[in-house]
Amino acid sequence: MSRFFSEKYASLVPYVPGEQPKTRQFIKLNTNESPFPPSPLAVSMAAKAAEHFELYSDPECRDLKAIACQQLGICEEEILFTNGSDEILNFAFMAFCDANHPAAFPDITYGFYSVFADLNGVPYEAIPLAEDFSLNVQDYMGIHKTIFIANPNAPTGLTISLSDIERIAATNPDNVVVIDEAYVDFGGESAVPLIHKYDNLLITRTFSKSRSMAGARLGFGIGCKELIADLNAIKYSTNPYNVNSATMAAGVGALQDEAYFRTNCAAIIQTRAWVTEQLRHLGFRVTESRGNFVFAAAPNYPGQKLYLDLKAKGILVRHFQTPRLKDYNRITIGNRMQMEELLRAIEELML
Amino acid sequence: MSRFFSEKYASLVPYVPGEQPKTRQFIKLNTNESPFPPSPLAVSMAAKAAEHFELYSDPECRDLKAIACQQLGICEEEILFTNGSDEILNFAFMAFCDANHPAAFPDITYGFYSVFADLNGVPYEAIPLAEDFSLNVQDYMGIHKTIFIANPNAPTGLTISLSDIERIAATNPDNVVVIDEAYVDFGGESAVPLIHKYDNLLITRTFSKSRSMAGARLGFGIGCKELIADLNAIKYSTNPYNVNSATMAAGVGALQDEAYFRTNCAAIIQTRAWVTEQLRHLGFRVTESRGNFVFAAAPNYPGQKLYLDLKAKGILVRHFQTPRLKDYNRITIGNRMQMEELLRAIEELML
Repeated sequence: MSRFFSEKYASLVPYVPGEQPKTRQFIKLNTNESPFPPSPLAVSMAAKAAEHFELYSDPECRDLKAIACQQLGICEEEILFTNGSDEILNFAFMAFCDANHPAAFPDITYGFYSVFADLNGVPYEAIPLAEDFSLNVQDYMGIHKTIFIANPNAPTGLTISLSDIERIAATNPDNVVVIDEAYVDFGGESAVPLIHKYDNLLITRTFSKSRSMAGARLGFGIGCKELIADLNAIKYSTNPYNVNSATMAAGVGALQDEAYFRTNCAAIIQTRAWVTEQLRHLGFRVTESRGNFVFAAAPNYPGQKLYLDLKAKGILVRHFQTPRLKDYNRITIGNRMQMEELLRAIEELML
Repeated sequence: MSRFFSEKYASLVPYVPGEQPKTRQFIKLNTNESPFPPSPLAVSMAAKAAEHFELYSDPECRDLKAIACQQLGICEEEILFTNGSDEILNFAFMAFCDANHPAAFPDITYGFYSVFADLNGVPYEAIPLAEDFSLNVQDYMGIHKTIFIANPNAPTGLTISLSDIERIAATNPDNVVVIDEAYVDFGGESAVPLIHKYDNLLITRTFSKSRSMAGARLGFGIGCKELIADLNAIKYSTNPYNVNSATMAAGVGALQDEAYFRTNCAAIIQTRAWVTEQLRHLGFRVTESRGNFVFAAAPNYPGQKLYLDLKAKGILVRHFQTPRLKDYNRITIGNRMQMEELLRAIEELML
């Protein structure tokens, strides 16, 4: 830290992304990336767009909005695209939280929420999930806080029902409720249709997982037009050209290629069911994940040891060394061959 | 504005980017874009990277850092890449300004500085430039503020000397001095070599102009390793994967293709000299610009009227309707043919 660093960040603890080793070829099951390349249409449209990188990207993302709105059944004032969904989440913390509007989210969830809160000087409450990692909707009803819920949740993959989301939105009418649907395409149920019923509901999404575009950085937020206008005020005061033109074009291509998207999601869901079954067969506790990952604790095998032993075998999974999570590992669903290798490695280790 | 919007942004006035009309084909001389496409190497490397968009981009930007550091004669702890240079500028406002460290910058400069200050709740002083838009270095010596100076300045294109930058850095040892070198490649002198002498000096740069990559969004900051560490703490608390992988690859390609870069910069400089001469010949006041634009006031022709009349003729320039700038227009240097059309249109209007 330099002597110039603003005191307001004195205790800031940045987010730690999953490892991106370059030294060795790993089977990478640690950052919830897709095992499938992006749609060929997305790739070719990105390549074409790069030929005109000399021009600024469209700050209004008009082409992308047009197709997204058509598919989602919303209008263009109800959506905002960002440089990954981390950016829309940060914008939401900026716009809808402050000293008088503290944040609340589960104690076990996407690790960035608490970082965003700290970054923006927002007090927050981390509400404990139940022993089995389920969320008790009562804990979020009428709490007068800006609420962030990942649905499906990370790293557990567990979901809450739309009726629970409605109860939370309805009982916190003076606060924004953010539903982070990064993983919704793998079997979750989207709350997007509810935005016309609740003016305090903001949905966030990403192209990183189900659209195989983690490296392109494309996320978006959906809400009533007043919420989106606020987030646009933040965007235009931060980085109007936040989405680059290759990513924007790739996004259009990815949305156009619906068949590819559906096939890949179905493959992940099928592989997830199979891996879950296999792991349970080996004695693992495995949550009912609706994400593109499983969250699993081995019998009589410490979580960190399994992480390290798999790494030594060339397989990367994600381990969180916090008290409630340390028995588990979050394992991204790769393709069938990668998961066969994973299971083979685990069986060898457990012999 | 929604009823949920944090009061701290009640008076926020977002930045207004230059027009990006889609309705008609304009000669676009309004956003300081390059008239040349990006290097073919940059384009092909971006296209190749897009094929692997399913993987997250490297948050450390290792490949890009390696070549940039080699070319700039700095080490990897002294540079940080961002989603355009707007992002590094915002990070600098976040990291090095607060209620106790107000900002200072010229009254006439890049319009985003005051927006970043407002966004971050930072008090600031807009120090008036002289009548001829020159900067009086005395105004910045020992002022105990975090200083932002665009060199060359926008929209005037005027520069200050490295010895003046040294005097400012040396007399404000307890504050960061940010030199925004977005336009330095068009005839300015870079302060990068000074970072090893002044630990309070931060240089920001962009690939948008001289590298023809405005649509790719790539900027960077250069400073002593402690300053860069602070900015990295902000980055990793905001958006660790802030630079997407196609842009990162394009950046490597653009840096590798030095000959292309030099040729384009030389062409802009030559065309700028010619356009300046022609406009002066027509009676315009034209500043001594070292950017990829000229800043010019027509004789007996209001600035806004010239802007509108040129627009009607299919040529877009940038007009700022503020008291000190309203007589002028900022005109991006396009290719020779575009500038010939511009001059022809101006001559017709002035008949």
